[in-house]
Amino acid sequence: MANAIWRVNVNNQTITTEPIPESWQRLGGRALIPRILLDEIPPTCEPLGPFNKLLFVPGLLVGHMLSSCDRISVGSKSPLTGGIKESNAGGTIGLKIARLGMKSLIIEGVPANEGWWTLYLNKDGGRFESADELIGLGVQDSATCLREQYGEKVALALIGPAGEMLMASAGIQNLDKDGNPTRIAARGGLGAVMGSKRLKAIVIDATDTTAPPLTDEELYKDAKNRYIKSLLAHPQTKVYSDYGTVAVAMMAQEFGALPTRNFSEGQFEHIEKINGDTIRDTILARGGEGQTTHACMAGCVIRSSNCFPDPNGKKMVTPLEYETVGMVGSNLGIDSLDTIAKLNNEMNDLGIDSIEIGAALGVAVEAGLMEFGDGDRAMELVNEIRQGTPLGRILGQGASAVGKVYSVIRVPTVKGQAFSAYDPRALKGTGITYATSPQGADHTCGLTIRAQVDHLSPKGHKKVSLGAQINMAGFDTLGSCLFAGFGYATAPGAIRDLLRGQYGWDLGEDALQVLGRQTLDLEREFNKAAGFTRADDRLPEWMTIEPLPPTNAVFDVSEEDLDGVFS
Amino acid sequence: MANAIWRVNVNNQTITTEPIPESWQRLGGRALIPRILLDEIPPTCEPLGPFNKLLFVPGLLVGHMLSSCDRISVGSKSPLTGGIKESNAGGTIGLKIARLGMKSLIIEGVPANEGWWTLYLNKDGGRFESADELIGLGVQDSATCLREQYGEKVALALIGPAGEMLMASAGIQNLDKDGNPTRIAARGGLGAVMGSKRLKAIVIDATDTTAPPLTDEELYKDAKNRYIKSLLAHPQTKVYSDYGTVAVAMMAQEFGALPTRNFSEGQFEHIEKINGDTIRDTILARGGEGQTTHACMAGCVIRSSNCFPDPNGKKMVTPLEYETVGMVGSNLGIDSLDTIAKLNNEMNDLGIDSIEIGAALGVAVEAGLMEFGDGDRAMELVNEIRQGTPLGRILGQGASAVGKVYSVIRVPTVKGQAFSAYDPRALKGTGITYATSPQGADHTCGLTIRAQVDHLSPKGHKKVSLGAQINMAGFDTLGSCLFAGFGYATAPGAIRDLLRGQYGWDLGEDALQVLGRQTLDLEREFNKAAGFTRADDRLPEWMTIEPLPPTNAVFDVSEEDLDGVFS
Repeated sequence: MANAIWRVNVNNQTITTEPIPESWQRLGGRALIPRILLDEIPPTCEPLGPFNKLLFVPGLLVGHMLSSCDRISVGSKSPLTGGIKESNAGGTIGLKIARLGMKSLIIEGVPANEGWWTLYLNKDGGRFESADELIGLGVQDSATCLREQYGEKVALALIGPAGEMLMASAGIQNLDKDGNPTRIAARGGLGAVMGSKRLKAIVIDATDTTAPPLTDEELYKDAKNRYIKSLLAHPQTKVYSDYGTVAVAMMAQEFGALPTRNFSEGQFEHIEKINGDTIRDTILARGGEGQTTHACMAGCVIRSSNCFPDPNGKKMVTPLEYETVGMVGSNLGIDSLDTIAKLNNEMNDLGIDSIEIGAALGVAVEAGLMEFGDGDRAMELVNEIRQGTPLGRILGQGASAVGKVYSVIRVPTVKGQAFSAYDPRALKGTGITYATSPQGADHTCGLTIRAQVDHLSPKGHKKVSLGAQINMAGFDTLGSCLFAGFGYATAPGAIRDLLRGQYGWDLGEDALQVLGRQTLDLEREFNKAAGFTRADDRLPEWMTIEPLPPTNAVFDVSEEDLDGVFS
Repeated sequence: MANAIWRVNVNNQTITTEPIPESWQRLGGRALIPRILLDEIPPTCEPLGPFNKLLFVPGLLVGHMLSSCDRISVGSKSPLTGGIKESNAGGTIGLKIARLGMKSLIIEGVPANEGWWTLYLNKDGGRFESADELIGLGVQDSATCLREQYGEKVALALIGPAGEMLMASAGIQNLDKDGNPTRIAARGGLGAVMGSKRLKAIVIDATDTTAPPLTDEELYKDAKNRYIKSLLAHPQTKVYSDYGTVAVAMMAQEFGALPTRNFSEGQFEHIEKINGDTIRDTILARGGEGQTTHACMAGCVIRSSNCFPDPNGKKMVTPLEYETVGMVGSNLGIDSLDTIAKLNNEMNDLGIDSIEIGAALGVAVEAGLMEFGDGDRAMELVNEIRQGTPLGRILGQGASAVGKVYSVIRVPTVKGQAFSAYDPRALKGTGITYATSPQGADHTCGLTIRAQVDHLSPKGHKKVSLGAQINMAGFDTLGSCLFAGFGYATAPGAIRDLLRGQYGWDLGEDALQVLGRQTLDLEREFNKAAGFTRADDRLPEWMTIEPLPPTNAVFDVSEEDLDGVFS
């Protein structure tokens, strides 16, 4: 059924559709997740227990191959943070889910019996098929098997060994437009929730479906053209196309905000070995399967993804992104792109969040489990995760778990979730975002690095962070990549008109902000009901007292500012 | 200085005394802990960081060798629960600390440099001495060395290897009146806080000191006589003298509340192999160093402690208590007293809480790390703790950590602290205590097993739990063993008159309740400031849906009742 809620109960293996409740109609993507969870689960429930639900919700604009606007929001109560969780990804599954007419896919219950399952869904409904043969396989082999079985046109959501072991660093992988299973809804342990439902994979077959209907095709087309034109004209579009997200590395270094050796320094002396220029030069020099410019979603004109080849030109990993370079590279004192790429590919295959595991390995150094710069040991530790050894279980649960088990205080997390690759002491606005975002520490919830402010001053960042948080929540509600913002920024009214053209709603001039604020309010409502308080809206204590070289900044934003962000 | 606050800063190794602030004057034992912490630490601070403090506070009646009334309260922000923590113990240290005139010993800061220390305190002040040679030693060898060095009359507080490794199951051991280092302030990870201050031991030398002064000696003596007479006449005094705390085992079995195989059953089919009768018979039959009746504190007329000998009559462990028999015995499906005694002695030597580790091992079974009934494997796992292996680190952090790392839901904890040996589904009032006590799950905070109520009914336990919580908090504020209650119960006015006699205060007829309520209010204030909400006042979700054989009870007390306990 199109334009419906699809509900899958893994306990009795039923697949049903139902009309969209009135109060859910105008919500999409990230915004719909807290609404559904507030309506359907006890906020205090066990994340891996029978009452939690796993949601796949396409953003409001998803389904039209509009550049950078086909992202899927995956959501649940997080086993990592214990609060609301939305993690979104590009790739192909957003498009296909929207084309099946799903307003949301709701997966509920836990199986009564042993065994693992693949959930196959197409326009006529779907079925459960045994996935026992896939268990223990990495994401790449699993995807290969599933594509052989179901065809190359299906979209997939799947978990790796980490998700099977219910690790809180496990994400949910999906295919990019070329079939690589590396577009991950990485953060917050959603792969563990999928594992708790004992679903190894979800196959979305959108054969014989069309794009969601438009209310005013002309208006939509006009808005789309304005948006694309602006996007293509924006200088950053070219930068991200050429360099990918690693373009930001030198900026982080310059601000002294590049996580280095478990956030003990803000600049890495070997940054030139792993920065955007070097990645691009290496890809171009090695040739072969390497690509500096690669799109993760059909229709994307930015193409910020890349493909990093080994010295023989064979693909090592796609994409190699800034967050991984920062958290697995400088944060671990590792200055070899080949080592970083190898670790990244291994983490993709395990189906884990490279940010969380980069941070976990940094804490592991503090615990005496490895030394900075030792890439071989880092790979051994990642292999412990695959083997599910006691040490691997600890690491696979993320940075906070390593800190907890080894009684290490220098842990870079908020609400149990690891920082991204920006040290908040040298980027105070991003620190406010880390501290106060309902999602836990996360750069995609409101990075402020491009704001024209004194990033070291303790004051004046509250509004900057709030603005960024609202905008990002707005993008996540539309299903837009954050880089779509380059286009929206210089095409006034485009978002408003795209929504009017598709749905007939007029959200006004600040449509993005209306959506974003609504999303944050719902998320905060969920977290409050789950037991969160202002005590959870804090950076770790050690960051308030330990100076960060070379700026020697501490995190000195006042508690009043932190508590006043949303008021 | 007598009648003073003693303050020790481990960062600059200073030992100072200061007058008692007005608002601390009438508080003692458990009650003074939240007051000091609210006044002196940020409630959101890192438990193992520089801002937390470790407190030793004798109860209000401590210092006079009044039977069962010389207990020490040790307190801090808990690394296990993240909230307020008081854990009290008998033994000799309460008496000696009171005789040095300490209203409270406050230990603050963290050392700037490497190295471990022994803190020696006597009536003239004290000094730090290197403890590097003791590091890695078990509690027993450490105590032997310290007693050789400082003499047999000193009291000790010391940690074992678990405290050195900052494990959240680590307690603080002290000597019983015969010099056995087995009276542990076990719960909530206070040993880890002491480890974070890098104090291996505290030596209390009370040479040339006397009991705290009395205001009205006659009144005190009269009240004391009434109390002792009542205590000696109470039938339970004889029961606990003969059987120790294990007297309660058959009662728990009868109610279907005996934790069996990680709380999956409420009765143990082999209970007769490990119950009070069998322990007593075994001790009597084996003879030698065995004792059925043993006092932990000088002057105690109850003498509920025991000494369990091996088949040759050699001491295996003292004491062997009900909570250990329940959590390490039936909860692990182990029906051999020798195995339980051996495990208990090993845990004592590591300086860990046998309740927490019994629960952790039960969860370890769910994680596939051992099988129920396998005492050899249990000993191997305890040895992993001693070795500090990754698995040992996980176990040493307690039951919640094992559940977290292995994504096991069936974890018997509240606020991160393991249940004691009573299944709350079959003892609903105790379940309310577990859920709502500011201390986390803990039978000593308000056991209701002796209340004349229908323990299986979901209703009517709110007041019973509150009454028990208040009384227990009152005892903990006096420094009284809970068994002192046998005496107080039939000596009306004794508590009031003991306090009047010692201090000149008149707290009225319900002195115990005044003290208890005040204590709970302060503790709840601390927890609220630390970020606790009603969401923390809940039993684990699985206990609300999984029936407990043979009664098939679930925990079905309403959220309204849980939230209304203190209102």
